[in-house]
Amino acid sequence: MNVGEEVRLDIDRATRLGITEAVLCAHKSPAQIGEILTQLLAGGHDALLTRFTEEEHAALPADMRAKLDFDVVSQTAFFNHSPVALMPARVAVVSAGTSDTRVAREAARTLQFHGHDSTTIFDVGVAGLWRLLERSKEIAQHPIVIVVAGMDGALPSVLGGLVPSAVIAVPTATGYGTARGGETALASCLASCAPGVTVCNIDNGYGAACAALRILHAAKGLSA
Amino acid sequence: MNVGEEVRLDIDRATRLGITEAVLCAHKSPAQIGEILTQLLAGGHDALLTRFTEEEHAALPADMRAKLDFDVVSQTAFFNHSPVALMPARVAVVSAGTSDTRVAREAARTLQFHGHDSTTIFDVGVAGLWRLLERSKEIAQHPIVIVVAGMDGALPSVLGGLVPSAVIAVPTATGYGTARGGETALASCLASCAPGVTVCNIDNGYGAACAALRILHAAKGLSA
Amino acid sequence: MNVGEEVRLDIDRATRLGITEAVLCAHKSPAQIGEILTQLLAGGHDALLTRFTEEEHAALPADMRAKLDFDVVSQTAFFNHSPVALMPARVAVVSAGTSDTRVAREAARTLQFHGHDSTTIFDVGVAGLWRLLERSKEIAQHPIVIVVAGMDGALPSVLGGLVPSAVIAVPTATGYGTARGGETALASCLASCAPGVTVCNIDNGYGAACAALRILHAAKGLSA
Amino acid sequence: MNVGEEVRLDIDRATRLGITEAVLCAHKSPAQIGEILTQLLAGGHDALLTRFTEEEHAALPADMRAKLDFDVVSQTAFFNHSPVALMPARVAVVSAGTSDTRVAREAARTLQFHGHDSTTIFDVGVAGLWRLLERSKEIAQHPIVIVVAGMDGALPSVLGGLVPSAVIAVPTATGYGTARGGETALASCLASCAPGVTVCNIDNGYGAACAALRILHAAKGLSA
Amino acid sequence: MNVGEEVRLDIDRATRLGITEAVLCAHKSPAQIGEILTQLLAGGHDALLTRFTEEEHAALPADMRAKLDFDVVSQTAFFNHSPVALMPARVAVVSAGTSDTRVAREAARTLQFHGHDSTTIFDVGVAGLWRLLERSKEIAQHPIVIVVAGMDGALPSVLGGLVPSAVIAVPTATGYGTARGGETALASCLASCAPGVTVCNIDNGYGAACAALRILHAAKGLSA
Amino acid sequence: MNVGEEVRLDIDRATRLGITEAVLCAHKSPAQIGEILTQLLAGGHDALLTRFTEEEHAALPADMRAKLDFDVVSQTAFFNHSPVALMPARVAVVSAGTSDTRVAREAARTLQFHGHDSTTIFDVGVAGLWRLLERSKEIAQHPIVIVVAGMDGALPSVLGGLVPSAVIAVPTATGYGTARGGETALASCLASCAPGVTVCNIDNGYGAACAALRILHAAKGLSA
Amino acid sequence: MNVGEEVRLDIDRATRLGITEAVLCAHKSPAQIGEILTQLLAGGHDALLTRFTEEEHAALPADMRAKLDFDVVSQTAFFNHSPVALMPARVAVVSAGTSDTRVAREAARTLQFHGHDSTTIFDVGVAGLWRLLERSKEIAQHPIVIVVAGMDGALPSVLGGLVPSAVIAVPTATGYGTARGGETALASCLASCAPGVTVCNIDNGYGAACAALRILHAAKGLSA
Amino acid sequence: MNVGEEVRLDIDRATRLGITEAVLCAHKSPAQIGEILTQLLAGGHDALLTRFTEEEHAALPADMRAKLDFDVVSQTAFFNHSPVALMPARVAVVSAGTSDTRVAREAARTLQFHGHDSTTIFDVGVAGLWRLLERSKEIAQHPIVIVVAGMDGALPSVLGGLVPSAVIAVPTATGYGTARGGETALASCLASCAPGVTVCNIDNGYGAACAALRILHAAKGLSA
Repeated sequence: MNVGEEVRLDIDRATRLGITEAVLCAHKSPAQIGEILTQLLAGGHDALLTRFTEEEHAALPADMRAKLDFDVVSQTAFFNHSPVALMPARVAVVSAGTSDTRVAREAARTLQFHGHDSTTIFDVGVAGLWRLLERSKEIAQHPIVIVVAGMDGALPSVLGGLVPSAVIAVPTATGYGTARGGETALASCLASCAPGVTVCNIDNGYGAACAALRILHAAKGLSA
Repeated sequence: MNVGEEVRLDIDRATRLGITEAVLCAHKSPAQIGEILTQLLAGGHDALLTRFTEEEHAALPADMRAKLDFDVVSQTAFFNHSPVALMPARVAVVSAGTSDTRVAREAARTLQFHGHDSTTIFDVGVAGLWRLLERSKEIAQHPIVIVVAGMDGALPSVLGGLVPSAVIAVPTATGYGTARGGETALASCLASCAPGVTVCNIDNGYGAACAALRILHAAKGLSA
Repeated sequence: MNVGEEVRLDIDRATRLGITEAVLCAHKSPAQIGEILTQLLAGGHDALLTRFTEEEHAALPADMRAKLDFDVVSQTAFFNHSPVALMPARVAVVSAGTSDTRVAREAARTLQFHGHDSTTIFDVGVAGLWRLLERSKEIAQHPIVIVVAGMDGALPSVLGGLVPSAVIAVPTATGYGTARGGETALASCLASCAPGVTVCNIDNGYGAACAALRILHAAKGLSA
Repeated sequence: MNVGEEVRLDIDRATRLGITEAVLCAHKSPAQIGEILTQLLAGGHDALLTRFTEEEHAALPADMRAKLDFDVVSQTAFFNHSPVALMPARVAVVSAGTSDTRVAREAARTLQFHGHDSTTIFDVGVAGLWRLLERSKEIAQHPIVIVVAGMDGALPSVLGGLVPSAVIAVPTATGYGTARGGETALASCLASCAPGVTVCNIDNGYGAACAALRILHAAKGLSA
Repeated sequence: MNVGEEVRLDIDRATRLGITEAVLCAHKSPAQIGEILTQLLAGGHDALLTRFTEEEHAALPADMRAKLDFDVVSQTAFFNHSPVALMPARVAVVSAGTSDTRVAREAARTLQFHGHDSTTIFDVGVAGLWRLLERSKEIAQHPIVIVVAGMDGALPSVLGGLVPSAVIAVPTATGYGTARGGETALASCLASCAPGVTVCNIDNGYGAACAALRILHAAKGLSA
Repeated sequence: MNVGEEVRLDIDRATRLGITEAVLCAHKSPAQIGEILTQLLAGGHDALLTRFTEEEHAALPADMRAKLDFDVVSQTAFFNHSPVALMPARVAVVSAGTSDTRVAREAARTLQFHGHDSTTIFDVGVAGLWRLLERSKEIAQHPIVIVVAGMDGALPSVLGGLVPSAVIAVPTATGYGTARGGETALASCLASCAPGVTVCNIDNGYGAACAALRILHAAKGLSA
Repeated sequence: MNVGEEVRLDIDRATRLGITEAVLCAHKSPAQIGEILTQLLAGGHDALLTRFTEEEHAALPADMRAKLDFDVVSQTAFFNHSPVALMPARVAVVSAGTSDTRVAREAARTLQFHGHDSTTIFDVGVAGLWRLLERSKEIAQHPIVIVVAGMDGALPSVLGGLVPSAVIAVPTATGYGTARGGETALASCLASCAPGVTVCNIDNGYGAACAALRILHAAKGLSA
Repeated sequence: MNVGEEVRLDIDRATRLGITEAVLCAHKSPAQIGEILTQLLAGGHDALLTRFTEEEHAALPADMRAKLDFDVVSQTAFFNHSPVALMPARVAVVSAGTSDTRVAREAARTLQFHGHDSTTIFDVGVAGLWRLLERSKEIAQHPIVIVVAGMDGALPSVLGGLVPSAVIAVPTATGYGTARGGETALASCLASCAPGVTVCNIDNGYGAACAALRILHAAKGLSA
């Protein structure tokens, strides 16, 4: 057995889905991450790394690190990626608290990787409702809104009732006790009284951005 | 064994706690409910019945029923109770949706039994935020606010951030799927980002009213 | 207390969100449903009723029933609603098994109420993968795909990897034992290995359709 | 992106709710904590830090640390705070076991920050009931009682049946196995057979103190 | 296949364990219950039936019913059983609320079937602590105490700290919401701060009585 | 606030219950443990320490350590304790696997502290049933049997069907995946098909020994 | 929409997997069941119905019923099925209690439908271990053993340690309280200390039989 | 007490079940692992070590390490084991993602220990379905298929519908949030819509291989 047989890249994904394959680094050994990057480089492909820690970054050889644009807060890296001019922001990324930034930035970085700018509006949770209300018109101008919230997960419900945009909720693990590592925010978003809010896995900023990319793709079909 | 030995009334409770013993009729047989009422009547006591269904009401002998003021929506009854002039409403009972009425009314009826009027404000859930905002000043004028909400349980968080009153949240079983019979609203209220919101058991309008009674009692001590 | 104070319609919702307020009939008493319809009628509004059972239908007065277009399988009804010519189907509603039809139809009916036709493709679960594969191209031609699946909830993962459309998963309560009333399908959809699949509450065909309506609305903004 | 945009202070909270905004340091990076303190200082505001560890304390620059009154047991710190003469103790903070001290002290410190003394009565759990009974009269003299208990969470039930005060229960994570990190104590408090006990999140001494502050505020309104 | 092959009596159990095999009627069809009784009768054996409902009782042929001593409250029946003079009560069966009677009586009836009287003390829950305290000495005179409690399950903790007897806790399904069908009382008893309290399954009065029988048997060995 | 007020010893427990107060060191700070030992020493009392780690042992001053009989496997220590001649073993401590030894020894050490020897029979889990069967007669000669088992928790069920002794089951956290940290073994013991098996909290060898001490005490009353 | 479009038969399954498509009748309406049978009949196919109740049977037209071999205990029916001579029993179906018969028979009936006899050995649970031991040699003579058990789910662990056969465990919903509708037996089987026991969904006798059919098919390949 | 009494080897297991006893090193102390190896060596036995970490390996004396064939990825070691010529691969080990390799290799190594080669096919999860489809014929040529998958656990359902082999699913802890440490993949496999898929504990590659060994043994009996 060798590490090469453990990896089977889905390079075709970008063509098939409009989303480049991402490498979820959690649960992978340094040897496996290295092997994946080697295969990608050999094929001339770029990739987005998620849940990529400083330790994993440091464990890579210097020449690999040189090909990475690494953001430590969101634990994302662009590998072998040529920057392009970004499309204007059609997606707003809104978060409830300062602690939710890491997830919100994972979403923003995923959009950036795929060529889209985004508008970030942080720390506007419902406990101080005025913070949200003073920016709700600005938010509503974005056709797609990613809402990131932990604890009671109330922000997506409130925002979903204020704006007609496509609302994608990302519950986060922020909180303690009955926040239950994000399970409460997740259940709260799913049981939301605001109609048509959709939901991603806990802390899954990457997935929310991919959902936004799918909607952007759908919009092309719809306007065709 | 006979049913008489199954009951031991805590008549002293009204003196000790300022709250008359209530009879939780759920889980009790008609024979047990009858026995409790008989003992109460023999001692000249009144009582509040909760979770008291139409079937249980119908199963009682007519002379017992004659001593009951029964409200079918809240499933409460006042037994052997002399109406008194109510104190003005110092408690607002606010609910998120029409389906939460039964619980909100259980709270209002418990307050009424103990001699307090209350202000009821129903169907002001956060999905249509304007409904809440247009009444938030009125709510804030009440020193105590009972907030009743199911589904995502977001209303107590939002209201707790708007008013300085003592806020008592009552999660309800309203909703389906991830509402999980009220568990999500409960967890959401407990993990609320609004500071100082306290919480009662699911559907426990009675308990919320008792908590309000304790606060009203505390206020006397505090102003002394 | 009377039933009138228990209801506060969010008529403004259609303007604000592009989605007409729906009446979730579960947890509501016949008196409450009747009151809501009366207020709607007085204002000249239409509405969509969901989780509306045959018993609740039968309990309404005949003149109310005359204003209802009731579909027993999906437990939906259009109240006081004037049919319009439907927009061509831009949404595919795909379901895994025959038992998931009730939920899939709730989605299709919600779209229809708001003026959109949809393409329904039923009973194409992954245990007989050929059924899905022979229709995957047809599905991919729809910019938006609602996927309805119970039991293991595997269909959204597989379909999400096959088509670039916006994919909205609706887990259902179909199954027994570890299907856990839809919780397993829900968790499975959320943990999906296919990127960008978003998820609604268990059995929430209505919510999935509303999410599709939000995307259709967003597409207008995006193509502007 | 920079850390400044991640923070949006709710300075208005003290005026709106009578409770100064607290900084929950758990889930925040040292950079974020530093940014928040910098913004507070710039505005001339004080703040209460909770879940603030020795490591986080040590990571701050010396001039910031000089403005902190740090209590390591309760993991709280007063930032930029001028001590005031405390109001006499109207709140008793009662705890079941020695291990619950950290939570009980978080409550007492929060009250102190807002200008209120409190009476602390520790290690009076129900397994040695005489310890509680010999102090129950003293406890009853306080209009508000915060009860902190882990494991079986039985103390709030027993105390709630003994005193007429407003009783705020704080379940703690003390215990192992079926104590389930505080979930059992929490459920036990919520299902309490003593009427009118309200409950906060697990280990949330801060929230219990805020609830007490709300009641103290309500008492002013009630006696007005 | 016939019903006869579905049954394999463990007649030897009385000799092996000192406990006669009981027939748990829940989950069994009338045909299966009938077959078991027929086999028992053919062998000249007696048996204790538990979870035996009025419907199941009515479904039996009259000659079978004639051999049954049926108690509807505890849902127990003695089949083909010759009454014996009972040993004096060495076991106290204590319950928290009136609703717990059915379980407490299942324990008392199981002891009676095996020849032991018991002392029953009902409705002494901790919300009115004086009820327990005025009888705690009487309880302590019993070497074995079965404590039956639902809701918060606090009674076994309190009693376990008051008496040196062998304490067997039986959590019950009494309560609603976070009582979670007895799970909270169960967890609370297991996490009890009182040392040496042992616990049975929810509503398992039968099992508690069997545990008492084992202790009575052990006592013989210990005094030998 | 000082650490002295955090501790309130229940010295009377030994007289009241026949069980000396134990110090559960988990969740306690070194300062708290030190304070407790100091108070005990000042009063001339001995104590049993449980969940006492090597780190906590090392953190104590040398003169305190000199008064400790510390067993690292069971994480127990006897403090200020004079050894006595042990009573002969009336309790068998039986465990399913080698990994369960730490819990089994906690039980044996607790018995030893209170003056009772015990018979230990380890690693006789049901996967190799012959190991249990060849020792079942020896086990049955003990009036009390403590059974320690993790994973599927099947040993108490099997043993409970083989011996008439008082059987106290202690589920352990041994196992992974669906063993769920002992929850599965716990549920399995509680749902046991063998009648009269009682159960303690997960990993609670101390509690099982206390239950045995209660039974030994009860036996004295029963033989009187 | 009509019911015809809701059904898409996987007729190819018998060829592809060696298992004929079964109709899980739970969650299906009478109209849907009727439609499926009609389509099957039109194609000349047979089918196995599972979870098929007496009510559903009665709701079918008489000519459909005439084509059904219906077994009420196992809730199975053979539709349009020609009996064949059965292969000798290579599978033993072993169950723990009388209440588990319905599930055990579902397995046996599924094997019979596919042409295989089986040996049924019922009511040999571990509480009376002699019942199992006296038949363990007979069981071991079957290459495949299906073990059906509820409550503590201990039987598969014990049997898995006694016989070298392929052991397929089916947990059942038998039991109450912590049996948790089969979840405890399921978790117990999965965490079994006996190596190589595999597990099916709760009450899934059908699935266990299908697994046996796959093994019988594999054996052909292995002996080739 | 000494460590020798904590171990009771089930050497007979190889004869009884055809599976050599394995040493699950998780939860065992270095002293216990050392004692087990010493006893094995003294008896001339070999063994398979699972969940054996690099730290545990390093803690052994050099002469013990010399007798170990240690594979760090699968955390398995062969102790005192003489390599034999392997039987040709009749088992395919298929995994969904690179992160599942450690579990898949545990299965392959267990087969190797018992003398069987296997075919490993990694990283063929359903999000890129073409990867699976292009190898499904190769997989179907193996009478036994072990399928290893985390996250949504969809691969066993899809594969179970494609091949007639005996399919043994091993859910893994790969994933985050609602993957819930493997619980979702486990539930998904158990609720699979593909008939006859059996399931092992989370991450239990060892158990899946043992199940395959049982099937290989059964096949001998079936072809006899």
